[in-house]
Amino acid sequence: MKVALLGFGVVGSGVAKIVDGAENDEMGDISIKKILVHTPAKMRQDPRCVVDINEILDDPEIDVVCECIGGLEPAHTYVKEALERGKSCITSNKKMIASFASELFPLAQEKGVALAYESSVGGGIPWIANIERIRRLEEVKSFRGIFNGTTNYILSAMDQEGSDFAECLQKAQELGYAEADPSDDIDGFDVRYKVALSCLAAFRRYVKPEDIITWGVRRISKQDFIWAKDHKLSIKLVGQARENKGGLSAYVLPLMFRNDHLLSNVSANFNALELDSANLGTAAFVGQGAGSLPTAHALVQDILDVNEGRRLDMSQAKPAELKDPEAASYYLRTKQGEFFDQAGVIKEQVGKDAYVTKPLPLSRINDLAKQAGDDGLFLAEVEL
Amino acid sequence: MKVALLGFGVVGSGVAKIVDGAENDEMGDISIKKILVHTPAKMRQDPRCVVDINEILDDPEIDVVCECIGGLEPAHTYVKEALERGKSCITSNKKMIASFASELFPLAQEKGVALAYESSVGGGIPWIANIERIRRLEEVKSFRGIFNGTTNYILSAMDQEGSDFAECLQKAQELGYAEADPSDDIDGFDVRYKVALSCLAAFRRYVKPEDIITWGVRRISKQDFIWAKDHKLSIKLVGQARENKGGLSAYVLPLMFRNDHLLSNVSANFNALELDSANLGTAAFVGQGAGSLPTAHALVQDILDVNEGRRLDMSQAKPAELKDPEAASYYLRTKQGEFFDQAGVIKEQVGKDAYVTKPLPLSRINDLAKQAGDDGLFLAEVEL
Repeated sequence: MKVALLGFGVVGSGVAKIVDGAENDEMGDISIKKILVHTPAKMRQDPRCVVDINEILDDPEIDVVCECIGGLEPAHTYVKEALERGKSCITSNKKMIASFASELFPLAQEKGVALAYESSVGGGIPWIANIERIRRLEEVKSFRGIFNGTTNYILSAMDQEGSDFAECLQKAQELGYAEADPSDDIDGFDVRYKVALSCLAAFRRYVKPEDIITWGVRRISKQDFIWAKDHKLSIKLVGQARENKGGLSAYVLPLMFRNDHLLSNVSANFNALELDSANLGTAAFVGQGAGSLPTAHALVQDILDVNEGRRLDMSQAKPAELKDPEAASYYLRTKQGEFFDQAGVIKEQVGKDAYVTKPLPLSRINDLAKQAGDDGLFLAEVEL
Repeated sequence: MKVALLGFGVVGSGVAKIVDGAENDEMGDISIKKILVHTPAKMRQDPRCVVDINEILDDPEIDVVCECIGGLEPAHTYVKEALERGKSCITSNKKMIASFASELFPLAQEKGVALAYESSVGGGIPWIANIERIRRLEEVKSFRGIFNGTTNYILSAMDQEGSDFAECLQKAQELGYAEADPSDDIDGFDVRYKVALSCLAAFRRYVKPEDIITWGVRRISKQDFIWAKDHKLSIKLVGQARENKGGLSAYVLPLMFRNDHLLSNVSANFNALELDSANLGTAAFVGQGAGSLPTAHALVQDILDVNEGRRLDMSQAKPAELKDPEAASYYLRTKQGEFFDQAGVIKEQVGKDAYVTKPLPLSRINDLAKQAGDDGLFLAEVEL
């Protein structure tokens, strides 16, 4: 089976390293034939490099296209074109696949080829594969987890060292855990894509990323950690979803929860993903959520599955309208305490500018938090 | 595909419940044809019950035998006979399969049938499946984990409530987590079988259970928890193994380790299993380690894999001689402090009858602890 790589950055070069370096028989006749790079200068990196996507799309020998470019375009167009031409596609691009899932999976089904995205959620954690395995026998009821290693590194450092957010973000950037523009991580968008993709795996629902209520950790402060510690709570950025009779709920929010819970001891840049199903109860998967080799490992696992003829069956997948989860209490830090008090949602003030709300629908606190006109507002769900 | 169940207890009836109750198409044409029970009186439970094993062995329609009897015999003879007759076998019987692996896997290979044991380690945790998946691409270097839910329940309760061992064991027995004769759990034999089986999955090595140095938690006391807490350590019963140039080491011992580690927050009757491999780094799997439905779920997963034609390839598996792991420090509580002091292994006394040793080979402290002639001795490895 001949593979083409689109992109030869951190992930793409990891894939090449694993496939080229395979010593055992596992890889069989799988090999990388072409690698798309975007400038002629980069062609010197490897004799298999090409700069024209058509050299890959028009090559009938290439069975599988592995997309590791990132971003929406041209990644989306390339994958769509490859599927149209009957090539299986594998992607680690969470933003692209989460945004175009409802277009691309039916296309793959129609063309009878595979479309796989293990590496786009949880890096080296076999999250999608284990969800699919469990679903052979029973329905997944809910999932939740720490989907973003960058923010988890920052929150762990703030918790352990008592440092402030800006300092920990800078350290994460120096270590290469955070991008120069960290918005996708710290504002929760990265988690949002992964939650949408996990909903597809767990519930066979196409969730639009922009429908998922999302609050990040950009405004978290030392004060919030001090209050949490006093109440034996940990703070993590958590993505979660649950399907029940009322419909599907999915959201991304900092969560304050008991510090003797498993997720509390997930530190540094690890991911930890939990799910609940009828017979298994709670199962959790913990590992490297990003990085060249863990992500590349997941991509190559997808290549092996495609080579074995495995296809994700998305024929039952349907668009979803999200509902509110069960009413919950929220922790708010805002200069606009009076605004929330007038709205009648405050249960008590718990510190300077800090409040815990009465149990509320998520959409209610989300609307109020947006209307409050406070750029410095920090919002978290509290499990007391 | 026609399945026969051997045994209709907690696990067997769970398997029947899942297979009979399957609503979706997943189960395809898989059905349970016969169920072996051991007394005619039990035949009234289900019209498919038989009391004579030959009714199953002689039935050419039966493709797969699912052994959930437990114990060495007659489970071993039945599985061997079934393999001889070209039937695939699935077992949740860790003691039997760990003890006879080097006989039964080559027989299955010779007969071209499957032999699967997912449910015998980690209950509902897809531990063996995930090891096999990782091994498609890279070698597992080491594993360690909490393999026994009963002792983990007892240790968690002692830690949280400050109760003593006998009290927590009794509570575990009342809740049905511990057997009337709890030796297999609290003396570490259950973990020993699971470590042997994990060595087969992770390293393709047949390890004799009796070769694995094993110390349980029967003699643990409040005093040990107090000392551990003072040093920010947790205590768990841990099975572990590592393969390196020096050879394979595998052992079962209470482990005192930093209480901010993931394994520290694994409470109640959960299992948590960790492994290390080259590209993935550390990955961990957490879930229900026992119970009717989680274990039955794992058995039915094996049935589905056999139905898809999946076979574990044990053709490279070889017998292993165990070596000592790297030298480590040990915590000892014993009335025979003088004996250990004379042997020159004590680093310091840390409490009444309690000592921490110098770094030692495991076989050395194991030999001394057996020679000391102290029935009340408690031994743990310490990661300081």
